[in-house]
Amino acid sequence: MILTVTLNTALDITYRVPSLRPHASHRVSEVVERPGGKGVNVARVLAALGHEVTVTGFAGGPTGQVLRERLADGAGPVDALVPVSGATRRTIAVVSQLTGDTTQLNEPGPHITPAEWATFLGRYEELLSGSSAVALCGSLPPGVPVGAYANLIRTARSAGVPVLLDTSGEPLRRGVAARPDIIKPNADELAELTGSHEPLRATQDARRRGAHAVVASLGADGLLAVTPEGRWRAAPPAPLHGNPTGAGDSAVAALLSGLIRQLPWPTRLARAVALSAATVVAPAAGEFDRSAYEELRGRVAVASEVTAA
Amino acid sequence: MILTVTLNTALDITYRVPSLRPHASHRVSEVVERPGGKGVNVARVLAALGHEVTVTGFAGGPTGQVLRERLADGAGPVDALVPVSGATRRTIAVVSQLTGDTTQLNEPGPHITPAEWATFLGRYEELLSGSSAVALCGSLPPGVPVGAYANLIRTARSAGVPVLLDTSGEPLRRGVAARPDIIKPNADELAELTGSHEPLRATQDARRRGAHAVVASLGADGLLAVTPEGRWRAAPPAPLHGNPTGAGDSAVAALLSGLIRQLPWPTRLARAVALSAATVVAPAAGEFDRSAYEELRGRVAVASEVTAA
Repeated sequence: MILTVTLNTALDITYRVPSLRPHASHRVSEVVERPGGKGVNVARVLAALGHEVTVTGFAGGPTGQVLRERLADGAGPVDALVPVSGATRRTIAVVSQLTGDTTQLNEPGPHITPAEWATFLGRYEELLSGSSAVALCGSLPPGVPVGAYANLIRTARSAGVPVLLDTSGEPLRRGVAARPDIIKPNADELAELTGSHEPLRATQDARRRGAHAVVASLGADGLLAVTPEGRWRAAPPAPLHGNPTGAGDSAVAALLSGLIRQLPWPTRLARAVALSAATVVAPAAGEFDRSAYEELRGRVAVASEVTAA
Repeated sequence: MILTVTLNTALDITYRVPSLRPHASHRVSEVVERPGGKGVNVARVLAALGHEVTVTGFAGGPTGQVLRERLADGAGPVDALVPVSGATRRTIAVVSQLTGDTTQLNEPGPHITPAEWATFLGRYEELLSGSSAVALCGSLPPGVPVGAYANLIRTARSAGVPVLLDTSGEPLRRGVAARPDIIKPNADELAELTGSHEPLRATQDARRRGAHAVVASLGADGLLAVTPEGRWRAAPPAPLHGNPTGAGDSAVAALLSGLIRQLPWPTRLARAVALSAATVVAPAAGEFDRSAYEELRGRVAVASEVTAA
C-alpha cells in the first residue's frame, strides 16, 4: 500500500464565470466540488493507475464531512484521515470562460491542536507499518510545527519506508535536512530553497542539503532529475495546451509508482512527464487523459545530463 | 410576528485578501461565514430592533445545515425553512484590503423540485395565519416558477397580511401586477421594470403597474416614496463612507417595522434612511451601528415631493 499524507486537505471548489472582474458581482454558472490537497490528488491518480493507496492527514467540520463522503464514492483511495475540531479549508478556483484563466483563493485551514497532532503521529506510525512508500504533500495548517515533515521523514526512515516530500518554504528546508528519498520542487520552490535560479546548480545543491534524489519540475521544460544513479532531463514531445492544475501531483504519483515498482530512473521520469502532460491536456482540471498517457509514454525524450558542475 | 421569505437563502462567506488580481493565487487571511439571502438579512435586523420574526424559504445540503446551525445561535429569527435535497448556495465576497473593494461570486442555488415547491406553499399558508406582515425577498432558485412571487402575494392578500416585495427582473414585473403593498426597488431595478431612468417618473409608473406604495432606494440620494398618502424624499444628513452591503435590507426592515407599528410615512422613511446609513458606517458588512442609528434618526431630512407629473 502507498500512503499519502495531506495535513492541509481541502474541499476544492471550481467556479465558472464569463470573466472575473475585480469590484464586480458575478453569477457563477457552474460549481464543481471535489476532495483536494496535494496528497489527496496524488492518491486519486495512484488509485487510477491501479495502486492500493491510503490517504491520511486531517479533516473536520462540514467541509471535511463533504470531502470524506466524496472520497468514499467509488473505488478511490482508502480514507484514514484523522478527525479534527476545526473545519477543513476550501480552495476556490475561479475559471474565466473568455480567457481560460484561473484565479485561485485558498483558505488557510483549521487550527490543529497539540492533542490532534499527537493523535495524527500515532496514526501515521501505525499506517507506515503496512506501507511500501509514503508521500508527504503540501502546506502545513496553522498549529502544526514547522518541523513536522522532518519529524515524519525520520519516522518513515526508521520504519524502512521510502519517503517523497513535496512542499515549499521552511517546511521543505527543514524536511530536506532529514534526508528524504525524493523531493519534487518546482523552479520557484527550488530557488527559494537554494538561492539559485539556475536549475541544475540548484538541483545539485538541494541534494547536498540532504535529499537523496531531486526531481525538479520545470514547467514546459519537463523534469530535471539528479539522483545517486545519474542525472537526466525528460521533456514532453511537443508544447502542451491545457490546464496545468494537478500536473505536479500527477508527476509525484508517477514517481511513487515507479519507486515501488523499482523501475529504472529514465522509465520513471518518462512516465512522470507523460502523466503530467496527460493531466494538462485532460478536459477536467486535475484529471488525466488515459489514452494520452498511454500514447505519450513512449514519446518522452529522456536524456542523460552531462555537466561540468 | 413578521415573516420573511428567502427562496434562495445563502451561506454568505467573506474572504479578506491583500488585493484581488485575476489569474493570480491568493492566500485568504480571514474567513467569515454567516446565514444570508436578503430575507434572512432583513430578519436579522428586525430581530435586533426587537421584533418577533420568522424566516422561511429553502435550505439543504451541508451548506444549508451550517446556515441553520448559525441561525439557531443566539436570539435571532425563528427558523421555519423548508428542507430540500439540493445544497444551499454559497456567496463569496472577496474584500481587497488595499482598496476596500469587494468582488462578489454568487452560486446559482439548488434546483427546487415541484414537490418541494408544493411543500413550501403549504408551509407559507400556515405561517401567514400568525403573521402581521410578510416580506418576499431576493432571487428565485432554479426550478421555482417565475410567477412565484405573484402567487405568494395573492395568497398573502387573501389572508389579509400586508406584503412587501424586494426582488428584480421578471419576478418583480410579475409580482407588481399582483398588487403588493410595498415594493423597494433600487434605481436599476426600477429602470428595468419601467423603462425610465427618471426616478420620480419611474416610481409613479411602478405604482400604476400595481404596487400600492413604491419606495425607491437611490443610493447616496436616499429614498423616494410614492404612496397613497403622499410623496416624500428622505436623505441622510451627510455623505456616508463605508460598506453598502446590506443597506437595502436594513431599509426593508425599517419599512416593515414602521408598517406594523402604523407609523406615519415620513417617520418610516426617516427610520429607513437612518438604519441604512447606520449599516453603511458599521465596521462589519451587513450589521448596523446602533448608536449611529439612534443619532441619525432625528437628523434625516424628509421633504414632501411636489410635482407636476
